[in-house]
Amino acid sequence: MKVLIVGASGTVGKAVVSELGQRHEVVTAGRSSGDVRIDLTDRASIESAFAAIGTVDAVVATTGKVTFAPFEEMEAADFAVGLADKLMGQVELVLVGRRHVSDGGSFTLTTGVLDRDPIRQGTSASMVNGALNAFVMAAAIELPRGLRINAVSPGVIEEAMGSYGAFFRGFDPVPAARAALGYAKSVEGARTGTVFRVE
Amino acid sequence: MKVLIVGASGTVGKAVVSELGQRHEVVTAGRSSGDVRIDLTDRASIESAFAAIGTVDAVVATTGKVTFAPFEEMEAADFAVGLADKLMGQVELVLVGRRHVSDGGSFTLTTGVLDRDPIRQGTSASMVNGALNAFVMAAAIELPRGLRINAVSPGVIEEAMGSYGAFFRGFDPVPAARAALGYAKSVEGARTGTVFRVE
Repeated sequence: MKVLIVGASGTVGKAVVSELGQRHEVVTAGRSSGDVRIDLTDRASIESAFAAIGTVDAVVATTGKVTFAPFEEMEAADFAVGLADKLMGQVELVLVGRRHVSDGGSFTLTTGVLDRDPIRQGTSASMVNGALNAFVMAAAIELPRGLRINAVSPGVIEEAMGSYGAFFRGFDPVPAARAALGYAKSVEGARTGTVFRVE
Repeated sequence: MKVLIVGASGTVGKAVVSELGQRHEVVTAGRSSGDVRIDLTDRASIESAFAAIGTVDAVVATTGKVTFAPFEEMEAADFAVGLADKLMGQVELVLVGRRHVSDGGSFTLTTGVLDRDPIRQGTSASMVNGALNAFVMAAAIELPRGLRINAVSPGVIEEAMGSYGAFFRGFDPVPAARAALGYAKSVEGARTGTVFRVE
């Protein structure tokens, strides 16, 4: 399979490249590195990338920004960041990508543990993750040509605990290499409309 | 209790007014009718309404627009409608209202059955409902002063089946009066961070 991985230079992205690269042709993408450059908030950059690489069999996104801040201090503009970036960035990748994925191909998006296990300062992340989980469930039943769509919702990533550990006390960290297995399940398996929790 | 109900003229809104009005002082609000006028996409209108009515003990939203269309035809702008209206409209009501609700008071938002049981043309509704469900779960743990927040997720409303029945074949319709019980449970009960399914 030819697999496009957007966010390939991130902690999870690198692990997914390593996992899927063993068996598939991987095309890496990112805002400022990779085989092609994609900024998911810029539809034209997604279109240019597909024009350059042609049809792929699977599209994976392991990227997305949200604002972490005390709910007390959050206003609509703070929520807008996550909606535009992690939510609609990944959705836009599907909206453009659905014309460039081969029959039976797949999309795999990234949500995260805050969809079910909230923390302080995490309201925007929870909102966006809940939106993505429901989106893949719904889009799955309408995608044509046997296209599939899933999300992977990993626990807090072990390699990120140095930066984020104080926010995630009591969470059992998941090594990025194990989180990557969720992406393999989505890309190489047959399920659709599923949120693969890797905990 | 003094209860503000935004969307009071809608099918569910009227049933909630009828249910809560038996025991509480209800203040109705809507875009073009009600004791006060609120357009949830216009923050200033929410602020004006609270300036006019003062502190309340509970805030209920039974309103929110999303685009229904075949996924094949949907682009980012179509999803933006639901994100701005049903999602961020209700969230903005919380962001403004949290300064105007009495200690121990509550917010009750409206999601819907497409959060778990998707239909054709419903990707935006599913996305928005999933976002709201996760938002109330997360916001609940950070709200100060004993404030509570829940969502009610009713099945398809029986009174709306004339218009929407063809999209919801096989769904067991819920009378609006029964959906209203979910709002009573949220407003008059003690739970928080909960999605009350009324099916």
